[in-house]
Amino acid sequence: MSSQTAKRVAVVLGLGNGSGTGGATARLFAKNGYEIALIARGGDTLEKLAKEILSNGGHAKAFSVSSYSHEDITNAWSAIHKAFPKPEYVIRVAVFNGGSGVFKKFLDVTPQDVQTALQATIASAFSFSRGAILAFKDNDIEESNGKRGALLFTGATASIRGNVLTSGFAPGKHGLRALSQSLSKEFGKENIHVAHAIIDGAILMDGQRQRRNDPAWEANEDVRLSPESIASSYLYLVNQDRSAWTWELDLRPAHEKW
Amino acid sequence: MSSQTAKRVAVVLGLGNGSGTGGATARLFAKNGYEIALIARGGDTLEKLAKEILSNGGHAKAFSVSSYSHEDITNAWSAIHKAFPKPEYVIRVAVFNGGSGVFKKFLDVTPQDVQTALQATIASAFSFSRGAILAFKDNDIEESNGKRGALLFTGATASIRGNVLTSGFAPGKHGLRALSQSLSKEFGKENIHVAHAIIDGAILMDGQRQRRNDPAWEANEDVRLSPESIASSYLYLVNQDRSAWTWELDLRPAHEKW
Amino acid sequence: MSSQTAKRVAVVLGLGNGSGTGGATARLFAKNGYEIALIARGGDTLEKLAKEILSNGGHAKAFSVSSYSHEDITNAWSAIHKAFPKPEYVIRVAVFNGGSGVFKKFLDVTPQDVQTALQATIASAFSFSRGAILAFKDNDIEESNGKRGALLFTGATASIRGNVLTSGFAPGKHGLRALSQSLSKEFGKENIHVAHAIIDGAILMDGQRQRRNDPAWEANEDVRLSPESIASSYLYLVNQDRSAWTWELDLRPAHEKW
Amino acid sequence: MSSQTAKRVAVVLGLGNGSGTGGATARLFAKNGYEIALIARGGDTLEKLAKEILSNGGHAKAFSVSSYSHEDITNAWSAIHKAFPKPEYVIRVAVFNGGSGVFKKFLDVTPQDVQTALQATIASAFSFSRGAILAFKDNDIEESNGKRGALLFTGATASIRGNVLTSGFAPGKHGLRALSQSLSKEFGKENIHVAHAIIDGAILMDGQRQRRNDPAWEANEDVRLSPESIASSYLYLVNQDRSAWTWELDLRPAHEKW
Repeated sequence: MSSQTAKRVAVVLGLGNGSGTGGATARLFAKNGYEIALIARGGDTLEKLAKEILSNGGHAKAFSVSSYSHEDITNAWSAIHKAFPKPEYVIRVAVFNGGSGVFKKFLDVTPQDVQTALQATIASAFSFSRGAILAFKDNDIEESNGKRGALLFTGATASIRGNVLTSGFAPGKHGLRALSQSLSKEFGKENIHVAHAIIDGAILMDGQRQRRNDPAWEANEDVRLSPESIASSYLYLVNQDRSAWTWELDLRPAHEKW
Repeated sequence: MSSQTAKRVAVVLGLGNGSGTGGATARLFAKNGYEIALIARGGDTLEKLAKEILSNGGHAKAFSVSSYSHEDITNAWSAIHKAFPKPEYVIRVAVFNGGSGVFKKFLDVTPQDVQTALQATIASAFSFSRGAILAFKDNDIEESNGKRGALLFTGATASIRGNVLTSGFAPGKHGLRALSQSLSKEFGKENIHVAHAIIDGAILMDGQRQRRNDPAWEANEDVRLSPESIASSYLYLVNQDRSAWTWELDLRPAHEKW
Repeated sequence: MSSQTAKRVAVVLGLGNGSGTGGATARLFAKNGYEIALIARGGDTLEKLAKEILSNGGHAKAFSVSSYSHEDITNAWSAIHKAFPKPEYVIRVAVFNGGSGVFKKFLDVTPQDVQTALQATIASAFSFSRGAILAFKDNDIEESNGKRGALLFTGATASIRGNVLTSGFAPGKHGLRALSQSLSKEFGKENIHVAHAIIDGAILMDGQRQRRNDPAWEANEDVRLSPESIASSYLYLVNQDRSAWTWELDLRPAHEKW
Repeated sequence: MSSQTAKRVAVVLGLGNGSGTGGATARLFAKNGYEIALIARGGDTLEKLAKEILSNGGHAKAFSVSSYSHEDITNAWSAIHKAFPKPEYVIRVAVFNGGSGVFKKFLDVTPQDVQTALQATIASAFSFSRGAILAFKDNDIEESNGKRGALLFTGATASIRGNVLTSGFAPGKHGLRALSQSLSKEFGKENIHVAHAIIDGAILMDGQRQRRNDPAWEANEDVRLSPESIASSYLYLVNQDRSAWTWELDLRPAHEKW
């Protein structure tokens, strides 16, 4: 079996409760023929999403981790390689949708807040990226797009601008963006595509729905990001060919003030 | 006839000899069902491209201008409105692919070089954008993507970085980018999508082919941008929906050093 | 007479009514031993400022121009060279404090607005910079700071961000910044220092005083920029030595929201 | 004793072997009348520098830490408050000159490298900043410059650009810059000045001297940064008044290619 006919696998890390970017990305790539490997904490959400994808005719496997430590993420990659062995499968896509932070006045940010944000946003991205790059380097180049693989990162406005109340969030997001840029420059010449999306605005997911409790906001596509639209941009980035690919794009709703 | 069933028109300004981004954009949008209005100097290239599109089953009309002055561009927009009247047609896309500059040591840049670059890159973009915004404001919102229209600008590395030898080029490109950002912020809330693409690398077009005379370079998709791939990104930008659209993305070949 | 003992000349273009950055810069450099050459439209303001500097023990000469065209600026440089001949004088500093623009909705920006802004902000900066670079290249290196000369540009928030209502201003300011960056990179290796200051906030000058008519605002140093403080930063930039000089810094009042 | 006549204290964290930015900053502020509090690992360097400053007529105390953990840095701040009690002393300046990273290919960056860089560059900056902000908030506003205090951070090119070989360095530096920007925005309105310097080039310090072993490079002020010149810029930033202060400036040698 040639790698060109092998089943393509997309690995997605970070799902929240499944209603946001990570979940939408998994669903969309499944619809587009990818086998899905889901890495997240919280086994219930994972299993639920994997089943949902299966029931819609797709294929997905859950790789639950108890933390986003280097060891846990590395173990998840090992398990994914076993579950999707070559040459039947080829891992082509990895999406890092992790990261966290606190929105507090600086003096309310605790040392633990800092450690948690840096671990979840930067250190875990290193571990995840390592797994992705090692997987991709072993691939041959896909004919359709000229890539060994694509590694995507979810950023935010805080990736490019520190602000009042984001001292506990922006440093991690800036660091993640720097990592993505370094990786893009180091591995582009090996036909590994690394991209970073700056999500500028509120995403229509369960947490936001509950916090706002505002059906008009939910219904108004001009003012919030649909996770499905973000996922579409990720699919587009993966499909870009080698002659003209993107490191960074921003995504915001039509009426966002920026 | 509802505007939703009217024929969509894409206006493209700037074609060079037809082998670059402008030409590829016109061809791709024609294949995707758009009527094409071409604005450029040099009637021969214009007519040739319009005929080529026609012979491939598309529709295109040429609007030759003798200069990119405000008057000439405004006249071209008037002619386009006459040629593609409402309600049968609706202008949905405008692509500014103009702009010029010189690559010289600063002391070799002449006052005329400066005037030419500013006129071709910034002033003409104002005139073109005015025509586009006026056309779009008059549209209703397209159901498929939630937009009245989309206005795209072709940028370059010089749009974000002045460099040795680009004093005669980067100011115009920076100015064009600023215009696109202002327009994006001013008209997003009217569902007019304004986007800016930073092309970082050499494009495979006739001028570059002749200058390099290097078949290996031409054949190597990893080292130069295909105009067709740039055009694909423009079509993607136009198709992004209102909940998550992009102001700016960069495009470069896989092996570009950056 | 060695160039190290020649009298240092600072050329300042752009004065408004003399109450802003250009005037403060001229006054401060005069106090610090520079002969001042003032280029501006409006002979009255020019003569008044020159006299004021003279009456305070400094030296200043006025070079009135009827426009900021290439010809007029070039003629002013010629007149400055005649008025401050080598070897008695050496031109060490040039400050471009010009530039203009309109704050309007995009559809209210006229073609003439565009031309005026581009001419006053970018084209005239080219002409002024040409005069400065030609003057500096002819200098030897000053022992105190390791420079042949220093060329400074006054920027604004609109130099780095297009916004609603700045489509008639930001393109010129972005272009000016690009020029300054190109010049910095091209001429640093010839020990010519080019710097760009981003003024982020309202400056305490007559126009602002009249528009606001708010003595509390005037008195509150936390909320508006003093022209004298901006001028101090220009003197600091000029005095930076060759081992660690700055291309760009931002300046804003303590309480500015940004 | 009014706080205006109290002895001003500058706290400097990060000294290397004393030959770089931290050491030069301590020496320069001591010469300018500040009492110096030095925080660093490596008691020998600390004691040596404190003695040197004393022998030159200044005042300095060493606060050795065994690590840059939150606890150790917080303890150092407590000790500094005890050693420089109010109302005789007032802490006006804090300089974070810490941070570390590795320059390696991404796949050679170890999880421990990542942890070390994030701890030394971002987490320790949080702890240090907390001490500084708490100290400053308790100050009244200094008449000469309109500040309660000034908090400075040493950045690098890697603060704004990820590159090949900087995946183990740039994320920390990006994060530090984000922290400084958030703090600048949050505390400017309390007259606390936060600034960030981007050092773009090689600094003339012992490590570089030994690595290069190139007397011509050492002697050539056009190609490397003098720590003393960087320190001068820090003193300038501290002395900027409230009406026009700087968040960020870049510093590079005249002949640096950038």
